[in-house]
Amino acid sequence: MTRVLGIDPGSRVTGYGILDWTGKPVLVTAGCIRTETNDFPERLRRIFEGISRIVEEFEPEEMAVEQVFMHKNADSALKLGQARGAAICAGVARGLPVYEYAARQVKLALVGKGSADKAQVQHMVCFLLGEPGPLALDASDALGVAFCHLHHRQTASRMSRMVQR
Amino acid sequence: MTRVLGIDPGSRVTGYGILDWTGKPVLVTAGCIRTETNDFPERLRRIFEGISRIVEEFEPEEMAVEQVFMHKNADSALKLGQARGAAICAGVARGLPVYEYAARQVKLALVGKGSADKAQVQHMVCFLLGEPGPLALDASDALGVAFCHLHHRQTASRMSRMVQR
Repeated sequence: MTRVLGIDPGSRVTGYGILDWTGKPVLVTAGCIRTETNDFPERLRRIFEGISRIVEEFEPEEMAVEQVFMHKNADSALKLGQARGAAICAGVARGLPVYEYAARQVKLALVGKGSADKAQVQHMVCFLLGEPGPLALDASDALGVAFCHLHHRQTASRMSRMVQR
Repeated sequence: MTRVLGIDPGSRVTGYGILDWTGKPVLVTAGCIRTETNDFPERLRRIFEGISRIVEEFEPEEMAVEQVFMHKNADSALKLGQARGAAICAGVARGLPVYEYAARQVKLALVGKGSADKAQVQHMVCFLLGEPGPLALDASDALGVAFCHLHHRQTASRMSRMVQR
């Protein structure tokens, strides 16, 4: 069994989701950390401590974060970068290996199409996990990255078995 | 006595400097953490662990970081943001209060002029600390922020004494 923590970092809301892989993806927990305050170091503290608590409680073995390539606005890119840095460090501080996936890779793994929209991603996350209702958007994005990582891991391990035969 | 850790975060080089205040600023240590690798989570790990080690060894009571307002390029703003997030979390994880100062405030505290250039800042840091030779630029920027914080602390405590009289 592999337990993966997926993170969708944001300076106001950071989504998280944990999946187990037991031949299929199983939802362990998902939610979001809200960090609304004008004190920026305090926001980073809430992200860092929030993710740290989740890592301590659920003991994931690996962490997956969506990679951000380009951003329209330099000011919001700086804020998002700080939130990402805080979330990644919470994993790093507890020795988790951290993997990054582009949004396109997440969509490909989930929907089979790199240009799928947010609603399709959310729909597929619910479908794959057998969740009846829609999950919060930040949580489902985080679960999407976690699923993408599990998918890559499975493909890599199948390929290495094929090579060994 | 107050011991302050100043940080000048960067995605490739993060400068740090520690000052004691004993009626005047006294240099405790200064240097920089180099993080050249293409693996971005690994860069953040080096910053987080590097600053964490400095905090453990020198036990500063407070942390000061230069505030970044605007950036020309969204891609470099994202990278700088991640480095800032990692550096700030290293302080936050050990319970340090973190203070932010605009570049203008740092220059005002050191040179008395918010538009002073980098060379003037570097010169004043060396002069105030009685250092004969020039310090590395990243380290002197970090010491500049630490000095700015000590300066603000002194002014605030002088003002509160004046009010009490």
